Amino acid sequence: MQEIYFDNSSTTRVCDQALAEAVKEMQQEYGNPGSVHHLGAQAFHALQAAHTSLASALHALPEEIYFTGSGTEANNMLIFGVAEARARAGRRILVSAVEHPSVSEPAKYLLSRGFDVHFIPVDPQGRIRLDALAELLNEETILVSIMHVNNETGTIQPLTEAGSLIRRLAPQAIFHVDGVQSFGRVAVDLAAWQADAFVASGHKIHAPKGIALLWLKKERRIPPLLRGGGQERGMRSGTENMPGICAFAKASEIACAGMQEYARQMHHVKQVLLDAVSASLSDVYVNGPPLAEAAPHILNLSFPGARSEVLLHYLEEKGVYVSAGSACNSRSSKGSPVIEALGISPERVDSALRFSFSRENTPEEALAAAEVLQAAVTEIRLWMGRNRKRR
Amino acid sequence: MQEIYFDNSSTTRVCDQALAEAVKEMQQEYGNPGSVHHLGAQAFHALQAAHTSLASALHALPEEIYFTGSGTEANNMLIFGVAEARARAGRRILVSAVEHPSVSEPAKYLLSRGFDVHFIPVDPQGRIRLDALAELLNEETILVSIMHVNNETGTIQPLTEAGSLIRRLAPQAIFHVDGVQSFGRVAVDLAAWQADAFVASGHKIHAPKGIALLWLKKERRIPPLLRGGGQERGMRSGTENMPGICAFAKASEIACAGMQEYARQMHHVKQVLLDAVSASLSDVYVNGPPLAEAAPHILNLSFPGARSEVLLHYLEEKGVYVSAGSACNSRSSKGSPVIEALGISPERVDSALRFSFSRENTPEEALAAAEVLQAAVTEIRLWMGRNRKRR
Repeated sequence: MQEIYFDNSSTTRVCDQALAEAVKEMQQEYGNPGSVHHLGAQAFHALQAAHTSLASALHALPEEIYFTGSGTEANNMLIFGVAEARARAGRRILVSAVEHPSVSEPAKYLLSRGFDVHFIPVDPQGRIRLDALAELLNEETILVSIMHVNNETGTIQPLTEAGSLIRRLAPQAIFHVDGVQSFGRVAVDLAAWQADAFVASGHKIHAPKGIALLWLKKERRIPPLLRGGGQERGMRSGTENMPGICAFAKASEIACAGMQEYARQMHHVKQVLLDAVSASLSDVYVNGPPLAEAAPHILNLSFPGARSEVLLHYLEEKGVYVSAGSACNSRSSKGSPVIEALGISPERVDSALRFSFSRENTPEEALAAAEVLQAAVTEIRLWMGRNRKRR
Repeated sequence: MQEIYFDNSSTTRVCDQALAEAVKEMQQEYGNPGSVHHLGAQAFHALQAAHTSLASALHALPEEIYFTGSGTEANNMLIFGVAEARARAGRRILVSAVEHPSVSEPAKYLLSRGFDVHFIPVDPQGRIRLDALAELLNEETILVSIMHVNNETGTIQPLTEAGSLIRRLAPQAIFHVDGVQSFGRVAVDLAAWQADAFVASGHKIHAPKGIALLWLKKERRIPPLLRGGGQERGMRSGTENMPGICAFAKASEIACAGMQEYARQMHHVKQVLLDAVSASLSDVYVNGPPLAEAAPHILNLSFPGARSEVLLHYLEEKGVYVSAGSACNSRSSKGSPVIEALGISPERVDSALRFSFSRENTPEEALAAAEVLQAAVTEIRLWMGRNRKRR
């Protein structure tokens, strides 16, 4: 059976070059960077090289990069760190209404601990409303967290405009950007955004699961989340995940060097899929911005009359892997709060599917997937229609 | 040049079987356990199997195992979790004086936040003093943390006796055991210890860096450290490190199945090294308990008159890799607080070296290392003696 993997925003296959780095660190250069002998020094230099590589991908300094075990850990570290460091300066925290749970859950926790947390509303395409942001910002604001690319719709947030507002209305606030769904696929411009913090994850760009990073601007200081041996300049204790770190650096180099070409490629796959689906099915809706304005690797479609879970399983049986709801933990049966935040009809919310691409996908896969989708949606709509009549 | 790696308590080489698991998860079965399609289900089942495997190694329940990114994260999660959950029940926290920084640093942080933290003193062999523990325990005690095997001396702590005291004098306290230096090499008996929590790490037993676990008894509840997508039954959010998790399960199966044989083997290597060193050098001291009573894979020796750093570099140049000071972050130049806690002379503290073994080491390596050591210590003692006279 054909297998078409259009779920790359959940996770990606590790590429050969990143795998080779991980394998080398596991069996040849397996020292602990904290050891002072040759094997340790070798690992220490590899760790420094990875810092340099990822810093250069962000036009940042090597000492501003902290490796963590996941994007979630990096987001938690930043949010809880700012809350602890700045609690006396103010209590207001702003996060967009469409953040990933690794941002929204820490925010909700801080709300329960007495912080003044607000969620920035979004427009029907999933973009934060800048007027609402301006109204929410004040001198008590210690943290603003807005993701770069939304994991469900591919919406790119207006970070430059948001950054200007933040600097003007809450100059002391930390401006944090969750870049898990953008890094390595969409250009990152920390200087233009006037950002203070940024998070990227390895397993979304063909590095292994279990490695991510927090970039934190040198002038900004937060306490660590994990305490112990003092690794990562005291900011993230625990023996460094060298296989993950070296694979992440390699995967980032490949993704960043080819970013424009891969983006064109993924955008083309997406366009081919949408064109074919639109030609063969009526009543198909794009959730989020028009294709040209969205990130190249994410397409969210609704097929009213065909519920997502049913569609998902039909597609799965034909070897087409996509997702419904949130990227990272679809086992929950709740509807997607992100799709709901767009203010679209319940029928569209309930029939939303996310297709997410990588540079490994082809237009041929898009055509094959569209064919399966056409059959699936037609059959399910018929069946659900009949079912509805019977009741 | 020969390379003899006697620094296995810092980290180990990943074994072929664990590597194969990691590679499979990176390139073949690379789905996200949170995805509901075939690749996701495959990962989900692998995750469940790993829970079952590691639970059975601990005679525990699969749902009592939480995978984390490091032993440090697991220790932090437990300590900060208990502090948060139990702050109202009491403020007293007891940790041994010879804990790893991933326990002692969180404890010191809690001390700075108003908790009543005490350090349980040890005897000259590094064992906690049970009389001191009994005196420190009271009804306000919410947490007692004692490691199983000390990372610098190989001292095995009297956990059964400690557990009895805790249950009698502080029945509500959480009894936490850091087993990073024991799991897979020394038998773990959570029931006999009456323990509530236990931490094990993959990279000490030939699995990759970046994976560890917290075992927490079902009846005990703590809040999570990382919040987000709700992975690990809500206790540790973040996409699961599947390559690490599956490699850890495999490495644990191998280590636990062969534990007795490997322990005999490592003990023999250690004995050969000590015998050869004692025969060729005067003034050699074992720091910690007599060999028969210590963990099989750790030997800490002092060579008064030859400073550790100088020795370390001499050995390194001859391809013999050992460590001085703490296991995980020897780049610090401070003397080892653990070795100091034994109450031995400064000359012994300053000349202490740790030799740590794995099942991959041989008696031949021990003999070769002893030869290098004999030359090193003799030369350095001569040189340092001359130097001292000149001044």
